[in-house]
Amino acid sequence: MTAFSFEVLATDGAARLGKIQTAHGEIDTPVFMPVGTVGTVKGMMPENVAATGAQIILGNTYHLMLRPGADRVQRLGGLHTMMNWPGPILTDSGGFQVMSLTKLRKMTEEGVTFRSHIDGSRHTLTPENSTDIQYKLDATITMAFDECTPYPVEKKVAAESMRLSMRWARRSREAFVPRDGYGQFGIVQGSVFPELREESITKLRELDFEGYAVGGLAVGEGQEMMFRVLDSTMPKMPTAKPRYLMGVGKPSDIVGAVVRGIDMFDCVMPTRSGRTAQAFTRRGTVNLRNARHLDDTRPLDESCSCPACRNYSRAYLHHLIRAEEMLGPMLLTWHNIQHYQDLMRDLRAAIKAGTLTQFVQAFEAQQALGDIDPL
Amino acid sequence: MTAFSFEVLATDGAARLGKIQTAHGEIDTPVFMPVGTVGTVKGMMPENVAATGAQIILGNTYHLMLRPGADRVQRLGGLHTMMNWPGPILTDSGGFQVMSLTKLRKMTEEGVTFRSHIDGSRHTLTPENSTDIQYKLDATITMAFDECTPYPVEKKVAAESMRLSMRWARRSREAFVPRDGYGQFGIVQGSVFPELREESITKLRELDFEGYAVGGLAVGEGQEMMFRVLDSTMPKMPTAKPRYLMGVGKPSDIVGAVVRGIDMFDCVMPTRSGRTAQAFTRRGTVNLRNARHLDDTRPLDESCSCPACRNYSRAYLHHLIRAEEMLGPMLLTWHNIQHYQDLMRDLRAAIKAGTLTQFVQAFEAQQALGDIDPL
Repeated sequence: MTAFSFEVLATDGAARLGKIQTAHGEIDTPVFMPVGTVGTVKGMMPENVAATGAQIILGNTYHLMLRPGADRVQRLGGLHTMMNWPGPILTDSGGFQVMSLTKLRKMTEEGVTFRSHIDGSRHTLTPENSTDIQYKLDATITMAFDECTPYPVEKKVAAESMRLSMRWARRSREAFVPRDGYGQFGIVQGSVFPELREESITKLRELDFEGYAVGGLAVGEGQEMMFRVLDSTMPKMPTAKPRYLMGVGKPSDIVGAVVRGIDMFDCVMPTRSGRTAQAFTRRGTVNLRNARHLDDTRPLDESCSCPACRNYSRAYLHHLIRAEEMLGPMLLTWHNIQHYQDLMRDLRAAIKAGTLTQFVQAFEAQQALGDIDPL
Repeated sequence: MTAFSFEVLATDGAARLGKIQTAHGEIDTPVFMPVGTVGTVKGMMPENVAATGAQIILGNTYHLMLRPGADRVQRLGGLHTMMNWPGPILTDSGGFQVMSLTKLRKMTEEGVTFRSHIDGSRHTLTPENSTDIQYKLDATITMAFDECTPYPVEKKVAAESMRLSMRWARRSREAFVPRDGYGQFGIVQGSVFPELREESITKLRELDFEGYAVGGLAVGEGQEMMFRVLDSTMPKMPTAKPRYLMGVGKPSDIVGAVVRGIDMFDCVMPTRSGRTAQAFTRRGTVNLRNARHLDDTRPLDESCSCPACRNYSRAYLHHLIRAEEMLGPMLLTWHNIQHYQDLMRDLRAAIKAGTLTQFVQAFEAQQALGDIDPL
């Protein structure tokens, strides 16, 4: 049996190169986790997700509890077997989706009652059943159930919300079934208030989670504020455990957060953008729907190894998007996931080499150039 | 340089095992050509289409002339380069799509004027420019421009339509630019009237095409009538050239037509069905949307080698369809194309072994069994 463990292999400033051992395989950090909301990374075969270098994906408790249902996923052998992803899977707790996707919510000390966005049926999530659902999904990494504090928010409300989340974190921890190679992460809340973040960390440390997430960011506060919160929060975070910034983000968000000591990321951006004709490249984002690509025989990004860049022209990708062909989102999703994985690989190499500062400068310079117009 | 050639390697009754040599590779017949309407086999990467055993795909002149445009495809290196399909491509002439997709058509001896179904713009197709468009697309096999006779139709109208198509066939032949390894097929018309079909064949023979297609079937006449037309038509068809039944069809249509001497097929059925949750299996069609698959851990078809059958349960495929996830159509399209290619492989093996009669009996017995309900 493999114990769930985390090792820091190298540091460069606050940034860390690390390795997480799990029951379902190793994870090299800093890591980006593609999002497979409802049991599939939208538009990609899982073997192709793995081929981009992705070592762990994320699943959504909220979506999966509604459809196909946690008990059904368990009967089908768990999420790994059901979706043909043998590697590690992290599941969120459902708290964030309940707040962002449902109506007619009712929040109590016990948990939150809500109506399904699919059929209006009534459901309840509590720290205990969120943890149990994640057990049934066979999540490699289970997230504690929390309330995602809205933004902007008054300090008093943020404090109450954070303290509720901390009581829920304790109940989540008690409900977690320890298994070799499996872990559970607590989530630091407290909005943009350093002393609330610190109080949250202190409370979570007592519960000795296998990892710690920073929640409640990337909710509209902007990159500058997000980095400011990380600047005050990260020095208080446990160093011996993986540190996960939830729901982040753009490539520049990720680079800035890695510099500040974050080890793990997830975001729908590469997959969602792939479905809306937005491609991430070394020179920033490119909108393939734009007519300037009509006759452009160049690849999307000549430095990228994905099929979209190896085998097709920008003109063809543009054509697929205009014709609303499935292959357009399929290729752009693949490209975006590849781009994110390449970024993480390069960040890990820079930390290992002690050249992160130079890497960040070069990254910012390239992004600032913008995509070159060929016409 | 490779000459375009066709060789019959074995026969079993009227059925033929053959091989077509082209500038873009060999084609083993009987062959099924997946349809790549607008420069992509919907929902599949071309390398995966090839991996199913497909050796040739079909492109649509009508769709491609409207978007991205024939001149643009030519500038992008032709259809093979543009869509990353180095193998043979057959393009239809656009005649059928003009009749089925457009409004406000005007037909004259010269050709047909119509409005685009995309933006209402006015276009004209003639034997000459249809042939020229297919040249620009770099079609390995160009189809003569014809009028697809409606069904049902009076004999007098069918005769007039067929004779117009034969005059157009001559003009198409004159417009065709011969190139090593490229070919052009004439299309036999005449609806369900044997003497009209025979007259059509006689006229086409004079033009010495590289292959001959049977057009105007699979337009609502039903399998029995289609087979009856083939029974009277096939004995009159040239034997030294490939014979192509356009737009057909269901697996049982294909089996019956192979028995009657057809060498080539195309149909949107496997791809379109893949997008509407219909899967073809040895035991007939299966609707994966049906709730009976909710907890079914069996593969869709345990004898199939495609990823949908190797890596996933029926329950998961059902889940993907219910959740409207792209991976559902992607996997079912792949399965259906694999199923069709496996059928063609098995038909070729049976002709080679001289066991086609037994194969057809076993095929029909299995199809009649129907899909077994696991619950």
